[in-house]
Amino acid sequence: MTPRETRRARSRRQPDSGVRQLPRQQFVNHIKPVEFVSEDELEAIHTASLRVLSEHGVEFVLPEAREILKAGGADVRPGESMVRFDPQVIEEHIKLAPSSFRLFGRSPAYDLDIGGNHICFGTVSSTPNVTTLEGRRSGTMDDFCRFLKLSQRVNVAHNIAGHVVEPVDVPVPLRHLRTAHATLTMTEMSFRVFSLSRQRVLDVLEMSRLARGQTVEQMREAPGVFTSINPNSPRQYDEAMLWGMIECARVGQPVFVMPFALAGAMAPASLAGAMTLQNAEALAGIAFTQMVAPGTPVIYGGFISNMDMKSGSPAFGTPEAVKTTLIGGQLARRYGLPYRASGANASNVVDAQAIYESQMSLWASILGGANYVYHALGWLEGGLASSFEKFIIDAEMIQALTQVMQPVLINAEELAVEAIGSVPPAGHFLESPHTLDRYQDAFYTPFLSDWRNYEAWEAAGAATTNERAARIAEELIDGYEQPAMKPEDRAALDEFVARRVEQGGAPVQ
Amino acid sequence: MTPRETRRARSRRQPDSGVRQLPRQQFVNHIKPVEFVSEDELEAIHTASLRVLSEHGVEFVLPEAREILKAGGADVRPGESMVRFDPQVIEEHIKLAPSSFRLFGRSPAYDLDIGGNHICFGTVSSTPNVTTLEGRRSGTMDDFCRFLKLSQRVNVAHNIAGHVVEPVDVPVPLRHLRTAHATLTMTEMSFRVFSLSRQRVLDVLEMSRLARGQTVEQMREAPGVFTSINPNSPRQYDEAMLWGMIECARVGQPVFVMPFALAGAMAPASLAGAMTLQNAEALAGIAFTQMVAPGTPVIYGGFISNMDMKSGSPAFGTPEAVKTTLIGGQLARRYGLPYRASGANASNVVDAQAIYESQMSLWASILGGANYVYHALGWLEGGLASSFEKFIIDAEMIQALTQVMQPVLINAEELAVEAIGSVPPAGHFLESPHTLDRYQDAFYTPFLSDWRNYEAWEAAGAATTNERAARIAEELIDGYEQPAMKPEDRAALDEFVARRVEQGGAPVQ
Repeated sequence: MTPRETRRARSRRQPDSGVRQLPRQQFVNHIKPVEFVSEDELEAIHTASLRVLSEHGVEFVLPEAREILKAGGADVRPGESMVRFDPQVIEEHIKLAPSSFRLFGRSPAYDLDIGGNHICFGTVSSTPNVTTLEGRRSGTMDDFCRFLKLSQRVNVAHNIAGHVVEPVDVPVPLRHLRTAHATLTMTEMSFRVFSLSRQRVLDVLEMSRLARGQTVEQMREAPGVFTSINPNSPRQYDEAMLWGMIECARVGQPVFVMPFALAGAMAPASLAGAMTLQNAEALAGIAFTQMVAPGTPVIYGGFISNMDMKSGSPAFGTPEAVKTTLIGGQLARRYGLPYRASGANASNVVDAQAIYESQMSLWASILGGANYVYHALGWLEGGLASSFEKFIIDAEMIQALTQVMQPVLINAEELAVEAIGSVPPAGHFLESPHTLDRYQDAFYTPFLSDWRNYEAWEAAGAATTNERAARIAEELIDGYEQPAMKPEDRAALDEFVARRVEQGGAPVQ
Repeated sequence: MTPRETRRARSRRQPDSGVRQLPRQQFVNHIKPVEFVSEDELEAIHTASLRVLSEHGVEFVLPEAREILKAGGADVRPGESMVRFDPQVIEEHIKLAPSSFRLFGRSPAYDLDIGGNHICFGTVSSTPNVTTLEGRRSGTMDDFCRFLKLSQRVNVAHNIAGHVVEPVDVPVPLRHLRTAHATLTMTEMSFRVFSLSRQRVLDVLEMSRLARGQTVEQMREAPGVFTSINPNSPRQYDEAMLWGMIECARVGQPVFVMPFALAGAMAPASLAGAMTLQNAEALAGIAFTQMVAPGTPVIYGGFISNMDMKSGSPAFGTPEAVKTTLIGGQLARRYGLPYRASGANASNVVDAQAIYESQMSLWASILGGANYVYHALGWLEGGLASSFEKFIIDAEMIQALTQVMQPVLINAEELAVEAIGSVPPAGHFLESPHTLDRYQDAFYTPFLSDWRNYEAWEAAGAATTNERAARIAEELIDGYEQPAMKPEDRAALDEFVARRVEQGGAPVQ
């Protein structure tokens, strides 16, 4: 959108809520990514990664995957799960992946362009707990559904990054069926398929197809789910993740290859070394997807943080994580691939630490040129808890940052030389025609921040940001309405799930 | 410092405190500033500003200032306080200002290089209130002194930006004498002289000279104070600020020229227009300082935020403020001048809003290439309150950001190809020699963040970041020791103050 269009869009109010968000939209990041390391330094990381792949290799545990790798030209040795790659095998396969693709919602407003300078934000995923203003407890299916409702209603929540919270009360063999059913029927967003076993992946792929009334060919043309793979760093793709990559690639659903490692634990304690490992793992995984099916949409992911070397705790939103996020973006651009980064923090509650670490993550993502920011809404406690309040605070922070990315309009009218001349020294512009033309939508209006003076704020109850966020979350959830689904699609989906539940679901591999 | 030196420095502990900060140092920002607008767009702002100055002018209320302006080639008309400038008069005088300079502490550890890619952070200034975990109240001389102690002990507090809190209990005619005396004797930092009347400026300049045992010539060579001028936007320099600029420039003390305006109120409601006004005011003020004394060290300051167009409240840390900060940096670099930006937020308490707005301000400052970040520690409530807790949280956020600015070392050892090869797939690097060589100082260690897991954090009392920050502030203040001053300098200073107090101080103009 042009700045003028953004302004106009901004002034449209959602009729059904007092919470005035920016309209649901795809954002373009006009800030040129930060080139944190020099071209030579970037090349040194690239070359080191290729040396890791050719000299040391990556383990692919699944024999069927090794067959594919062998056929693709990788160095697969009999009786050995370690696979080595000549640099040109990597380079020629990486080139087959598209530089951008579209991930489809169940309605066009939820479609996402992934690549170029588009940026979108996904929810938190995979946390076992929920933290509220009252404390922390295990996640339930009820919480899961409340987070889905909130996601559907928060306009900068672009898609569902997986289990917005883990519904611990649903038996594991049935969990993927219940959560995918809820996500498909309660939201219109694309979402993540967990690659935890081949059967679970096949179930969810089929559910996504049925819910959209697609043929397999249509599914390939309009992917609605994706998988996100964190190899077992260092240097291992296990059976479940390889089946997930294979099955998703076969039906054209995007594969996010996203090594997640803490420098000092699963990766070297040097950032250059951690990036070398990340890049080697990502390149091997992405090359593999292209051997399965050339042209499979992929995302190059980066999520290197560091360990607290004193306590062994994982840390997020650190200076080191900012730098690896920036360098990861440079690598992704070098390979012409879309880039995924993450919003994250390590705080146990929604306090100052949670916010400053999240801001570090978000700024790094934006400056790194990320196309998709995972865990961007609701993440707490290093990924062990989801928070409704944090979800709203993150939405506010993301909204503001999407406005930072928009260019400033510079032309004679905006430069305002005459308007400036018409206001006397030490006067004011409040009644200037130049101001009156613009005052309604000149600036971004937050939905969460309270800009009243202390006295007015105190008289109104002195609510902190967390308290306001909790109220907003309640209001949005209360106002949720289930989106439509074609009755025949819904019937096919329900029938499939009923059958698979009757069969006992799918045990985790 | 090189990364290795930083690491070594990091591992030095302060003997007298459990609060492990980075050592006091000057930071270099290795991140290339963001060029937010194109060169053409920047030139359009520059040209529009010059049109404002030549066609409409800026009011200089003080007749003595207009004499200087007339002698300097400005268009000064009899009986008129509005002064117009030909573009070449501006351009030739701006060129006389140095691109960098040194601001001197009372001991070399507190010296600051201002310019190039150096960056330093100043305290909050000029707030009438103190906010603590218990609530908000008027500032006192006791609070002022406690903030000085804290500033002296917080290593990223590079200097005292003015009245860290306004000591409302000290009568106005004596206040500058009391606060300057406290700042000079309780800290070793450079600080701001308020340009509120000629006599007050002269008093504080003399106090700074006496406390350092300088001649006027030595003072010129080693400036220890500065003034910071916010013209009365739009387009007015009043008598008090002009006397401050004149008297500081005459003895070589730096002048920060820093238009502060809210777009929509004291500046146009378009960002391009607000920048045009800011730039016109800054250029006129800087040109004036060079007419007073060529070569006077100056800082080009920018502090455009926006008004909440609904309530009329000022807003800080907004997307608009981020953009104007980035563009301001481009303008300063265009003129070859050091750049000042600001840390700010509009929240009434130290909550999520306070933190995310402050992060927006800090990131903008760093990405804008700011050399000096004003109000970077302790600011709350749009500048109406100072907070001890926020001071500590800001220090933590600043420390982390200074580490983001440091390059990543990339060489064969750090790239760690062999170390990666030596750890088996899905293994770990915890005991790798590569890790053991680095684990003590591989990563930045925060002094405020709590990275323990939920259970350990809860068992230890579940302190929030604010509570931890309050404790750290107490600990640092309690451990404060007064720095030395030569007895003869102290005697001269005390005698001067006693005499001026006896004379009744200096009424505000």
